[in-house]
Amino acid sequence: MLDQIHLLAAVTVLGVLEQAYFFLQVIYARRAYGISPPKTSGPPEFERVFRAQVNSSEYFPIFLAILWQAGLFFHQGLAAALGVLYLCARYCYFMGYKASSSERLIPIYISSGVLWVLVAASALGILRFFLSHYVGLNIL
Amino acid sequence: MLDQIHLLAAVTVLGVLEQAYFFLQVIYARRAYGISPPKTSGPPEFERVFRAQVNSSEYFPIFLAILWQAGLFFHQGLAAALGVLYLCARYCYFMGYKASSSERLIPIYISSGVLWVLVAASALGILRFFLSHYVGLNIL
Amino acid sequence: MLDQIHLLAAVTVLGVLEQAYFFLQVIYARRAYGISPPKTSGPPEFERVFRAQVNSSEYFPIFLAILWQAGLFFHQGLAAALGVLYLCARYCYFMGYKASSSERLIPIYISSGVLWVLVAASALGILRFFLSHYVGLNIL
Repeated sequence: MLDQIHLLAAVTVLGVLEQAYFFLQVIYARRAYGISPPKTSGPPEFERVFRAQVNSSEYFPIFLAILWQAGLFFHQGLAAALGVLYLCARYCYFMGYKASSSERLIPIYISSGVLWVLVAASALGILRFFLSHYVGLNIL
Repeated sequence: MLDQIHLLAAVTVLGVLEQAYFFLQVIYARRAYGISPPKTSGPPEFERVFRAQVNSSEYFPIFLAILWQAGLFFHQGLAAALGVLYLCARYCYFMGYKASSSERLIPIYISSGVLWVLVAASALGILRFFLSHYVGLNIL
Repeated sequence: MLDQIHLLAAVTVLGVLEQAYFFLQVIYARRAYGISPPKTSGPPEFERVFRAQVNSSEYFPIFLAILWQAGLFFHQGLAAALGVLYLCARYCYFMGYKASSSERLIPIYISSGVLWVLVAASALGILRFFLSHYVGLNIL
């Protein structure tokens, strides 16, 4: 069973490490701008880092959910490759947003695009399984 | 293996699409009320849409976690049906909250109720497995 | 298959119950301090409870992702035991943060430490699988 998920598992652990990096960036920004918890507002430089982390955290379960469906029902290698691409785009998004609000835009479009490809792969893979399982129709 | 999870996978993809819809609603609300990131405060009309998305995002991993345990350990079809019901209640919650704070209440009670049924199904299914696996006691 | 994940499933359900408890605490705090949704700012006593819940929600998918990889690729029993430890540390974090900002620190260090052990176990387990699967090298 593990050989059907080991690439997905590796990308998942990479994703967790990236999230950990984003959390650390917020801690550093809190220290740099003197914003103690539970406060979350401050100068735009702090708020951009904070929002970049929050946005990445909100997308993380969505990313994992769709990565695994695409890997299980469509193709593990392709899903894992797209997953790595997504994590790279997220990193660029975080670094771009840290610099300025506008610099987050291109990476967020790329990361959203990758997610839509994963959604399409998942939907196609699940549809193929349904057709094969309930109708007996095998499409490639 | 996939026949034990294909309904859960389909509900998961539906849930991801719903989350994407909620994110788009926040983008539209940001444009409509002129609230540029990283700002998250503004008129109540904007803040309700924003909070509806944040709340749905916070519940999404909880929903997925319990959907899959209920489906794996209790009954896949029942879990998937409850999952679709949850997603419908979430949609009503979002649309209700967008209209007014009080209109979010009934759908949030329904969606919470569905989650508790999924928690109960998961707990029962896992308990049944523990009894069978460790004590050799088969219930039902 | 279920015997390889039943402990992870049990810890997952416990985690969901803990998240439900944290959500209820925010509802009680909203009533106690008269902070109606969509508002999220108020006296520090309210904001600490609110932030404790938000932080726990952000970490929840990370925790589940790494718990399952560690359980599947390293050792289910060890991962589940660390998972229970994490949930205990999160409870102490929440209660500490509710009391004062400084009382959240020791439990958050413990919970982060547990997560890093789970990350290390996952990475080692996945690496061992890769070596065995692609190179034919069996370690331990």
